Amino acid sequence: MVFIYNGTMKNILMTIQYDGTNFSGWQRQPDSRTVQGELEKVLSVLCKQKISIQGTSRTDAGVHALGQRAAFKGDFGIPVEKIPIAANHLLAGKRPFSVGDVIITGAEEVPVKFHPRFDAKAKKYIYKIRNNEFSDIMKRNYCYQIGKPLDLNAMRKATSSLTGTKDFRSFMAAGGNEPGSTVRTVYSAGWHRDIADGCMLEFEIVGSGFLYNMVRIIVGTLADIGLGRLDPDEMPEIINSCSRQRAGHTAPPQGLYLAEVYFDEEEINI
Amino acid sequence: MVFIYNGTMKNILMTIQYDGTNFSGWQRQPDSRTVQGELEKVLSVLCKQKISIQGTSRTDAGVHALGQRAAFKGDFGIPVEKIPIAANHLLAGKRPFSVGDVIITGAEEVPVKFHPRFDAKAKKYIYKIRNNEFSDIMKRNYCYQIGKPLDLNAMRKATSSLTGTKDFRSFMAAGGNEPGSTVRTVYSAGWHRDIADGCMLEFEIVGSGFLYNMVRIIVGTLADIGLGRLDPDEMPEIINSCSRQRAGHTAPPQGLYLAEVYFDEEEINI
Repeated sequence: MVFIYNGTMKNILMTIQYDGTNFSGWQRQPDSRTVQGELEKVLSVLCKQKISIQGTSRTDAGVHALGQRAAFKGDFGIPVEKIPIAANHLLAGKRPFSVGDVIITGAEEVPVKFHPRFDAKAKKYIYKIRNNEFSDIMKRNYCYQIGKPLDLNAMRKATSSLTGTKDFRSFMAAGGNEPGSTVRTVYSAGWHRDIADGCMLEFEIVGSGFLYNMVRIIVGTLADIGLGRLDPDEMPEIINSCSRQRAGHTAPPQGLYLAEVYFDEEEINI
Repeated sequence: MVFIYNGTMKNILMTIQYDGTNFSGWQRQPDSRTVQGELEKVLSVLCKQKISIQGTSRTDAGVHALGQRAAFKGDFGIPVEKIPIAANHLLAGKRPFSVGDVIITGAEEVPVKFHPRFDAKAKKYIYKIRNNEFSDIMKRNYCYQIGKPLDLNAMRKATSSLTGTKDFRSFMAAGGNEPGSTVRTVYSAGWHRDIADGCMLEFEIVGSGFLYNMVRIIVGTLADIGLGRLDPDEMPEIINSCSRQRAGHTAPPQGLYLAEVYFDEEEINI
């Protein structure tokens, strides 16, 4: 079928939250439950046509999102402002009192040319480490549990080497295939303790883009520094080496949250 | 096979935490994943014999436990103190970095006559209500999300009528089958705001025992009072009526936590 543009094509940009625990990641897969797959199913019902969505970031299995963005195009009747409520109702399913594990928190019409990945100027990720001798079973899917005490000062010292425009190849997964440059700009990176839960350490990083597994390898390296396995002064060398071998372990997916996507450089929170 | 008591029978009392989200409740069922069923499978492997456990409380699907207690008897080689680590390893499964959704946090030998249900003097339950216009997708399985503002003072006023030795039949599920008395003693009941997360309201109740769905119906009734659907001054009448129809709705399971079991009256936290 040839699609004939009839002048009423809309491009809808959504903001999406999800709990990544029970998804095989963002990207559509034929036999697995994915965020993109679930959203496309529901939006196709609402729009009465096959909908394909484009997300800003293809998060891995177990990774969460507080502010994923995704867009889809089509010529459909449902008013834009009705999309989140109608879709969330379908996404929640039938369990009483239930909230689905993916919700659309906003939807707006954008120019047809707008693309949620190519037009993204920067992204913010949060990574949560729970540093306590005893693990909290209710939080096991929402943070990286580290039992031994972490030296947060050492981690902060090493973190300060991350900002700037650099080749971050050391923090790219060995299997990561990056056809272009591995240079990225990290606008800000820092740690704070959750005021509510003193053993929860939160790492926040804003960058122009991230290589495959980059945030998780950065956090794993910083955790190794916090545990005394690596020295904070090694961080600049680790970066300069452009060698995955020099960096630390890959922190697990469940601590990672895609927090925000910036489409306007002026919004970048630095 | 006739079991011949050979003088080395042990009775092991365990303390257990679980995230009830992915369990069909505590009680063993042939075709469903239950906490009792999973524990019995793993303990039977460790003890090299078929193990049956007795829990203090048969929690429903979706209900969590911070301090469930359960015991099992047998004549086996594994030292008591090794049971939690060995069992937790099997319970966690193979996912890297994973913690299982049920963990044994303690095990001790108790007299053979000891029974975790009949010897329980009191139990503490916690119920969490998240009172915020916006729901938190990561917390959807761990609290009752109420968007409209709750009048906590009205709820506290009504809560004060709960303590004492009373017939609590009004708060028993219509289908609840209680062959004995419906009189129970509530030692304490109260609300506090989580210092870490100001919109999380926590209800704590200690009682000699609880009728089927009693805590959830009490919380649903108090929520109806907090929402202005019922008057706090009605609470004594609701109790005295011994009528389920007079009480409020049944709060959903995911906000409920079995927090502690008291086997010694002196321990009861009142």
